Amino acid sequence: MAGQKIEIFDTTLRDGTQGAKVALSLEDKLRIAQRLDEFGVDYIEGGWPMSNPKDSQFFQRIRELRLQHARIVAFGSTSRPGRLPHEDPNLMQLVKAETPAVSIFGKSWLLHVEKGLKVRPEENLELIYQSVHFLKREGREVIYDAEHFFDGFKDDPDYALATLQAAADAGADVLVLCDTNGGTLTSALAQIVRLVRNRFVQRLGIHCHNDADLAVANTLAAVQEGCSHVQGTINGYGERCGNANLCSVIPNLQLKMGYSCVPEESIRQLTSLSRFVSEIANMTPQTNMPYVGANAFAHKGGVHVSAVMREARTYEHIAPETVGNTRRVLVSDLSGRSNVIFKAREMGLGANHEPEKVAKLVQELKELENRGYQFEAAEGSLELLLRRKSGEPVDQFYLKGFRVLIEKNETGESRAEATIRLEVNGREEHTAAEGNGPVHALDNALRKALRRFFPDISRMQLSDYKVRVLNEKRGTAAKVRVLIESRSEEESWSTIGVSENIIDASWEALSDSFAYFLLKHAVEKQPVSAESATTLH
Amino acid sequence: MAGQKIEIFDTTLRDGTQGAKVALSLEDKLRIAQRLDEFGVDYIEGGWPMSNPKDSQFFQRIRELRLQHARIVAFGSTSRPGRLPHEDPNLMQLVKAETPAVSIFGKSWLLHVEKGLKVRPEENLELIYQSVHFLKREGREVIYDAEHFFDGFKDDPDYALATLQAAADAGADVLVLCDTNGGTLTSALAQIVRLVRNRFVQRLGIHCHNDADLAVANTLAAVQEGCSHVQGTINGYGERCGNANLCSVIPNLQLKMGYSCVPEESIRQLTSLSRFVSEIANMTPQTNMPYVGANAFAHKGGVHVSAVMREARTYEHIAPETVGNTRRVLVSDLSGRSNVIFKAREMGLGANHEPEKVAKLVQELKELENRGYQFEAAEGSLELLLRRKSGEPVDQFYLKGFRVLIEKNETGESRAEATIRLEVNGREEHTAAEGNGPVHALDNALRKALRRFFPDISRMQLSDYKVRVLNEKRGTAAKVRVLIESRSEEESWSTIGVSENIIDASWEALSDSFAYFLLKHAVEKQPVSAESATTLH
Repeated sequence: MAGQKIEIFDTTLRDGTQGAKVALSLEDKLRIAQRLDEFGVDYIEGGWPMSNPKDSQFFQRIRELRLQHARIVAFGSTSRPGRLPHEDPNLMQLVKAETPAVSIFGKSWLLHVEKGLKVRPEENLELIYQSVHFLKREGREVIYDAEHFFDGFKDDPDYALATLQAAADAGADVLVLCDTNGGTLTSALAQIVRLVRNRFVQRLGIHCHNDADLAVANTLAAVQEGCSHVQGTINGYGERCGNANLCSVIPNLQLKMGYSCVPEESIRQLTSLSRFVSEIANMTPQTNMPYVGANAFAHKGGVHVSAVMREARTYEHIAPETVGNTRRVLVSDLSGRSNVIFKAREMGLGANHEPEKVAKLVQELKELENRGYQFEAAEGSLELLLRRKSGEPVDQFYLKGFRVLIEKNETGESRAEATIRLEVNGREEHTAAEGNGPVHALDNALRKALRRFFPDISRMQLSDYKVRVLNEKRGTAAKVRVLIESRSEEESWSTIGVSENIIDASWEALSDSFAYFLLKHAVEKQPVSAESATTLH
Repeated sequence: MAGQKIEIFDTTLRDGTQGAKVALSLEDKLRIAQRLDEFGVDYIEGGWPMSNPKDSQFFQRIRELRLQHARIVAFGSTSRPGRLPHEDPNLMQLVKAETPAVSIFGKSWLLHVEKGLKVRPEENLELIYQSVHFLKREGREVIYDAEHFFDGFKDDPDYALATLQAAADAGADVLVLCDTNGGTLTSALAQIVRLVRNRFVQRLGIHCHNDADLAVANTLAAVQEGCSHVQGTINGYGERCGNANLCSVIPNLQLKMGYSCVPEESIRQLTSLSRFVSEIANMTPQTNMPYVGANAFAHKGGVHVSAVMREARTYEHIAPETVGNTRRVLVSDLSGRSNVIFKAREMGLGANHEPEKVAKLVQELKELENRGYQFEAAEGSLELLLRRKSGEPVDQFYLKGFRVLIEKNETGESRAEATIRLEVNGREEHTAAEGNGPVHALDNALRKALRRFFPDISRMQLSDYKVRVLNEKRGTAAKVRVLIESRSEEESWSTIGVSENIIDASWEALSDSFAYFLLKHAVEKQPVSAESATTLH
């Protein structure tokens, strides 16, 4: 068994895009395909040309990419009843995709044959046979997806097996057993795979969904029973509860069970692949994902942390580096001197800080964290803080004061207005703006005040705003933490504010965000006369 | 096997809070415990009194709640080396918690015995024996958690079994096999459980983590091999990749495998329980969660949708209603007709609603939920809404308008002031108050305005204030959801507000909170003369 090759068939670009919020453009799909090829999967299912014109374009464009390893697969169904294969638009689109391999799905469950296709059982067998046969004659590698195989088998095992036999007789290269509804239990699934394995000489594949939270376990069990071809998606994207997550399946098979799925050096790219795909798909990464999640190797709580520091395997099932992930230690207070020194060095703030200075800084940071600051997620504010503490001239504007007014009238309409007074290089700016709410109004007013001195400010924008109530039990008098993320073309950065007054906390994060941008990326405009400045407002 | 009872041991409040972002206040824990009891779990592990003073308070307060079914469990470790049990602060804290059951963990893996505890193997066996024996003599049901049991067994099976034997000899009621690092594969785990099952007559338990994406599958396999006690958390919260998710484990065991875990009617509350816990923990619910996720029965893509409409089981492994979830097609709709009718009945709002009225109400609720309202955790607002919609005279005050002013001056000091104009029974009240921040000021002003008419108002207080940004990517223009929890001696209730203006959203939740209290529990004061009223301010 050890070292046996298991084919990895990635369907992120096809079944993955059935996930509720997953939407990929043509360019997105091409980028992901390229990355999957570099990672070393064996098949990349690109889409369903019949159902989606974007997918047809994908198959044209992908040929230009000259993939190194993966075979591109077009997906479709068996021909419609009453049509000869070469007259069936679906099969013809598959042929036109000009891929080395095609996957077609056919019905295994009489319920679907009778209620969905509305044909007699024998007709369905004939459709399967004819469709596979046609595609084989066209020179394609044919991967036959037996849709609802396990439900069909539970309903009528003989019929389910007969559909596989029809595909096999027509020359299908791989017979893929699909748990389309995702509800099959591992023990039942393993038993059925074993039975199929004893009947067929073809390569067997497995395609699982996660509706019973068992997609990964079912995939592993199927491999143990003889499947050598595994279908899944990156991050488990897919309809409803998703498909089998290849980011869990691959390391389980390769690192723990001794199979060979992808080149050995690729496994170290797994975390990076997972994050790449979630970025491209614009999906928030799930931090608790096995192997690749940001918290997969995060430790909280004193007992574990000290043990992990001494001997990692005491609380880690594998070394995080193996899959390109990293260990994180979640401490409520920023973890000590070494971190601060590391950060300061990173900013070029002099490696040889005097020990007392560093100790004082660490003490100050701890106090801030006790008051609710969390610099793990606010490196922008941390950098400003360290620079301010080391005496650097960091700030280009000073607040003289602001006022925010929120009014709601009898009809329920509300408005928010902010006025702000700033000092920039000895000159004062006093302006006002409205917004959807108080923080938006303050944001608008600050931006307006700074624009006069730093026209570059229009190149930065706030991209994320988070509020967390720290001591919720104090009700409306509770302390809040505001995190703001901002970005320009050059980079993105996060800033933080903490106060019992949500407007104060927001101001703190907001002004740090602008201060950071001005420090790093903005050029001050040549002084303008007071007169022309006045005309700006 | 069918109908066999499997004990459900919930550790959301203990192991669940080890999750990276899970933080529960004392009040949160009490609310969750109450809900878990109503749901019908057998054990609720409340915390680790030794490691956390908040957890000690929990065990005091929980006794006042008079749970119906669940046994409360305090958690701790075996005694420290070199101490007699009754001198060990950890064991004494466990005893002081005065719970009917305790769970204590001991070391099964020589690596931990030698590197962590730093004692000889026989000493560890003695610690286990003495600790369990002491707790049994104190009259507790003792659940022995064999930490790292599977890793320990793989390393040295005889030693791992000897640790179990020590606990069994001392009278442990349940022996729980823990896959603490979460990396054990299902087939290996099943084999080890089978071996243990053949050696011990005690009840066996299973405690899995999800680091290999197998926590649920492993739990099911362990039950099939003879474990009758299952540990896990709601939504799978827990350190790193989380614990076995009870929201998957319970329906798999009860609906698919024929075991009995919770009362039959409870299974329909599963989705609601899951969402309740994620709201209380202020964790964004994972929409792709099996059984209980918002997308677990969501259909996208034409083929599936039309088939599902004709015959649900074609693409659904179970009927969503079974677990209190709902089918979704394209648009997000959370609350079906039956829910609304159920709620209305619960409030005594007439069981025989006209169908068109109910349909209209459901439609309105759906629209509100699309705009970000979430009534699962805001039953106070839901009740007010339903009563208002049914034409009941619910509101005792009307807002004529408010103004909130937040000022920050050059020295960094800030102040917040709110003015408010209300109409109560045809009389107007116009008053003002300050606060730590804008919402606190508004809270104070509203309370002050109402006190004149309803002196009872001093009997209620706001106990919790939560803010979640809904569309974070819109920066400071994002929409926010505010949840407020309030309580009086009689009960506690939650209300909600949604707006792009955080003050508006807070006002909505705040005014609903007061309206609910006035409707349910307050008596209006006899009218006072305008003169004497004026003197109040």
